[in-house]
Amino acid sequence: MITDAPQRVLDELTRALGPALVTDPAALAPLRADRSGHSSPAAPLALVEARSVEDVQATLRIANAHGVPVVPRGAGTGLAGGAIAGEDELVLSTLAMNRILEVDPVDEIAVVEPGILNGAFNDALAEHGLWFAPDPASRAISTVGGNIATNAGGLLCAKYGVTREAVLGLDVVLADGTLLRVGRRSLKGVTGLDLTGLFVGSEGTLGVIVGATVRVRPRVSGAIATIGAWFPDVHSAASACTAVGATRVRPAVLELMDAASLAAIAGYLGPQLEPKGAVYVLAQADGPAAASEADTIADALRASGGIVEATTDAAEGERLLAVRRSAHPAYAALGSTLIEDVCVPRSKLAAMFDAIGDIERRYGLTIPTLAHAGDGNLHPNFIFGEPGSVTTEVPEEIWRAADDLFRSALQLGGTLTGEHGVGILKKRWLADELGERQVDLQRDLRRVFDPRGILNPGKVF
Amino acid sequence: MITDAPQRVLDELTRALGPALVTDPAALAPLRADRSGHSSPAAPLALVEARSVEDVQATLRIANAHGVPVVPRGAGTGLAGGAIAGEDELVLSTLAMNRILEVDPVDEIAVVEPGILNGAFNDALAEHGLWFAPDPASRAISTVGGNIATNAGGLLCAKYGVTREAVLGLDVVLADGTLLRVGRRSLKGVTGLDLTGLFVGSEGTLGVIVGATVRVRPRVSGAIATIGAWFPDVHSAASACTAVGATRVRPAVLELMDAASLAAIAGYLGPQLEPKGAVYVLAQADGPAAASEADTIADALRASGGIVEATTDAAEGERLLAVRRSAHPAYAALGSTLIEDVCVPRSKLAAMFDAIGDIERRYGLTIPTLAHAGDGNLHPNFIFGEPGSVTTEVPEEIWRAADDLFRSALQLGGTLTGEHGVGILKKRWLADELGERQVDLQRDLRRVFDPRGILNPGKVF
Repeated sequence: MITDAPQRVLDELTRALGPALVTDPAALAPLRADRSGHSSPAAPLALVEARSVEDVQATLRIANAHGVPVVPRGAGTGLAGGAIAGEDELVLSTLAMNRILEVDPVDEIAVVEPGILNGAFNDALAEHGLWFAPDPASRAISTVGGNIATNAGGLLCAKYGVTREAVLGLDVVLADGTLLRVGRRSLKGVTGLDLTGLFVGSEGTLGVIVGATVRVRPRVSGAIATIGAWFPDVHSAASACTAVGATRVRPAVLELMDAASLAAIAGYLGPQLEPKGAVYVLAQADGPAAASEADTIADALRASGGIVEATTDAAEGERLLAVRRSAHPAYAALGSTLIEDVCVPRSKLAAMFDAIGDIERRYGLTIPTLAHAGDGNLHPNFIFGEPGSVTTEVPEEIWRAADDLFRSALQLGGTLTGEHGVGILKKRWLADELGERQVDLQRDLRRVFDPRGILNPGKVF
Repeated sequence: MITDAPQRVLDELTRALGPALVTDPAALAPLRADRSGHSSPAAPLALVEARSVEDVQATLRIANAHGVPVVPRGAGTGLAGGAIAGEDELVLSTLAMNRILEVDPVDEIAVVEPGILNGAFNDALAEHGLWFAPDPASRAISTVGGNIATNAGGLLCAKYGVTREAVLGLDVVLADGTLLRVGRRSLKGVTGLDLTGLFVGSEGTLGVIVGATVRVRPRVSGAIATIGAWFPDVHSAASACTAVGATRVRPAVLELMDAASLAAIAGYLGPQLEPKGAVYVLAQADGPAAASEADTIADALRASGGIVEATTDAAEGERLLAVRRSAHPAYAALGSTLIEDVCVPRSKLAAMFDAIGDIERRYGLTIPTLAHAGDGNLHPNFIFGEPGSVTTEVPEEIWRAADDLFRSALQLGGTLTGEHGVGILKKRWLADELGERQVDLQRDLRRVFDPRGILNPGKVF
């Protein structure tokens, strides 16, 4: 509900921003949600479609002066509710700031605006034989700014690192409108505290990213070896993945789909899929040693009881990959989904699957689980509601089961979120992982950046 | 000078710590210095040789209560004065906390106390076929805790990353004595702000590291290919290194020694060295594609005018490496040395060497320079005093020349310290790189961790 004060703020924003300020209810309604399944009860006050750093600065200056909460937003593809906006909040979108300002093939760095989509950025880099390694599953639809704000992971990060490792410097607008440059263009540098790393993964709580200087890599050349392996049960498959880790070869991809996942995928793909076991492991090796690494991986999977198919043929590789690609649509066909995101030391993968099995039995749930097994990151998908239903709000019973999941992950030395972030959905478990003292400390640090607490309030903390 | 109050603090520390508290002047005198060449005018009040986390906590609790400055110290091998202590300061050494608590070969992680030497840690890891990648030149004598506190680099980081990329979690004692655990054991995790990364490189200003969970890597197997290349001048050698970067091959090692370095090394090695040019580039390739990568590197060096020798024979490789290994003793024979540490985007290497040549001419100095060319990190060695002299205090004229160096590096998009840190020696240039606003922000962040400002005061900020 817009009271008098918000209207004054809107007037001031209109004067400063012109058509970049959007109050059309049809444009505001989608901002209540992201891809988490959660949505806020009411639409935000307005949307700023920033076109420039100056737009971002003006927005924050005005919002800060009036104490108006600001929700930074990219493509809205987050899975933790970090970009969801509600009543009397202002959404600051950097989606339209989507230029690639520079690609330097010699230094292997690029400078981009935050709104560029990861996929579009990679398309442009491909022309230079380069590649931006962070590869969240959302890469076709998520922005580089959002990847940075959440320290996005993906399938390849056990070998190629998470987003943080690809970010050299950032341009950030602070809550009071100040433009701050942190980090540098050089590959190394230790002048002062590492604020670049602090902004990465801060989920919009410290400042708004308006530019990024990132490392890009030479595209990996040569044939990719793809391996599919079938196992009788998740325990043997998880142990096989741990055995792959113990070979000291780092696969580019190592994914595990459990029995509930495979059943869902079989239902979705129909007769196309000919399962040779109840559980599936997908691996890829790339780079100059791809062939010999693939042999090592295949041997380890076989020695752990897997039925293994391997190929360097692209079409045949696609067939082995199809199982993995079908997982999310297959889950969606089962009902509404809460995609979870725990991460454990990879030797604890089998133990984590045991815990998930226990939770399924205790709560009478189906939790098909997909794991980035190379780095111990599991995505258990809590299914609820009817097949094909569009219910999005997660029932409390599902949260109770998720609570058990988080506690199990923490007990195994892991974390409640490997790559999706805390956002709204996990903030009630924050202290369980970090401890009260650290949460207090993090809140105090946040206050240094944003004394009035206007940036993404109610998220993370 | 110990006034009444310091004596009371010492009494309290003695009661809490027993023999861990050292006040013997012979033990305190060396704490005035590190390897920077700088030393404080007076010795510190006392030394705590902590044997446990509890010792560190007790020390900080007491120091904080009385407002006594505490200088955390490892092996004292820093090059920026970060561990130097002076009058009325308390040195808190974690050198005796040197146990390896765990090595997990499956998860490729290890848990260590901070005082373990990098070299000793690697010796122990070798038994598991593992390796801690951060490799500062000081690795035989520097501690893992110190490597983390300075985010140490080294020869291999263009390919294998800096220390920050190897640290998963830290146990840290805050200024008030609280033990804080940040980070995790899992390879990924995005719960809350990344305090682990913030502590890495914080040079003892945020807390005292008492434990670290680090990533270790499988040792790189197979023969190492070593390449030596001679060039007529530094410009062609620097361009050759940039050309190596443009091949998209990442050498494990890519070092450049300029003409002044080579002259010093020739003087030091005598007839053993048969230079085939005025400037030397050393490269190494390792891993499964070492041989073909070495060919690519050698071709690029040759195409840029280098006279190239290459080998996969270990003894012959040692001969090519000897030039590099002799650099520091050769500089030391010329006089006192201020080792500098700028880093620029690697395409700016030739321009940075041009700037160093200008500074040599303008100030009438010899500045033999060694570069980690793969990541654009240069170590210009400002020589002053007589050959064999033991003068350590850096004359103001040398600092004026260094000031020119820093400004040139910043103009080229670089940094005033690539891997040594700010410590005491570079704090007057901090704002030139970070800007006043960022320095203020960093100071405010520091205050959150250490409200009374007892941790390493006068360092960095």
